[in-house]
Amino acid sequence: MSYSPRLRQLIEALRCLPGVGPKSAQRMAFYLLERDRTGAAHLARSIDGALEGVHRCRDCRMFSDQPLCEFCRSPRRDRSRICVVEGPADVLAVEQGTDYRGLYFVLQGHISPIDGIGPEELGLDRLAERLSDGVQEVIIATGSTVEGEATAHYIGEMGRARDIAVTRIAQGVPMGGELEYVDGGTLAHALAGRRPL
Amino acid sequence: MSYSPRLRQLIEALRCLPGVGPKSAQRMAFYLLERDRTGAAHLARSIDGALEGVHRCRDCRMFSDQPLCEFCRSPRRDRSRICVVEGPADVLAVEQGTDYRGLYFVLQGHISPIDGIGPEELGLDRLAERLSDGVQEVIIATGSTVEGEATAHYIGEMGRARDIAVTRIAQGVPMGGELEYVDGGTLAHALAGRRPL
Repeated sequence: MSYSPRLRQLIEALRCLPGVGPKSAQRMAFYLLERDRTGAAHLARSIDGALEGVHRCRDCRMFSDQPLCEFCRSPRRDRSRICVVEGPADVLAVEQGTDYRGLYFVLQGHISPIDGIGPEELGLDRLAERLSDGVQEVIIATGSTVEGEATAHYIGEMGRARDIAVTRIAQGVPMGGELEYVDGGTLAHALAGRRPL
Repeated sequence: MSYSPRLRQLIEALRCLPGVGPKSAQRMAFYLLERDRTGAAHLARSIDGALEGVHRCRDCRMFSDQPLCEFCRSPRRDRSRICVVEGPADVLAVEQGTDYRGLYFVLQGHISPIDGIGPEELGLDRLAERLSDGVQEVIIATGSTVEGEATAHYIGEMGRARDIAVTRIAQGVPMGGELEYVDGGTLAHALAGRRPL
């Protein structure tokens, strides 16, 4: 195709964004150049700013501009509870959807032997140090996948070895879920996890 | 929400991309910081490179790194035909989908009195100059919308005033289109534009 190499490079570069294929990338590049050059310049600056200034919190590994994130710095958070999640997006999901006010620990993914990811790669050595800091409950909020369960099991052992209460977020029928359309595995978990009404 | 201001700024900045809402922007920002810092840095450089180096071709207003685009520079293009389109993406669509090998003229949109866009805003003065350069046919490939039609009508008058053949790309049933599902306006155009078989 015979057009601007710089434009072609921009289209290629936009494809590093998740969910952006060749057509979307072209549309985005044309849009930026035709209609939003200010926004484009601001985007380039914001990417640079984030790459330079956003790091992992020393204690919980959440994204942060400072050595300690706002959760770990805050005197208003309950330091006796740690909620363990697989990624930074999960922290926001818990913050937005629940009234949890304890601390977090962000894993670097989940245990996945097939991808060569064991306990060391997840940063579990740092979690072990945290668990010695007067923590009374570890809430394991990894995903309901095979890898998420394996990770939960491993962390559960770590907590029990230190005499800390270990809990796992409930698995069951989602809000608004009709039993007819819920898969068998979910229903089995929901039945096994039934509670007095 | 209590997390990194720089991360928040990146999420906001990503929303300047077309089709990217708050959820996608957050997913993109997290993805870049967690998994593709190299790609992110390359994207920022590519945006800067395109903003600085991509301009409009002097003759046809297509995007180009040089004063004249590759189409206008090429000795192999048929200079007696000009295909008029609404935007740069349309040039690529014609190049990829057809065997057209003439030149182009890229309008800055279409005539739209309601948005205050008249013939001057589209760069039609430059088109008028081009039409005096030995052009024999103007192919009008603006969209099949009210504004596209108004623009086509206006350019048609310009061509006729200079004794140049004026053609309009055909409107009709799209490839694979079943008559049952084609709208009435399209079908009326297809019938009125019927050709001997």
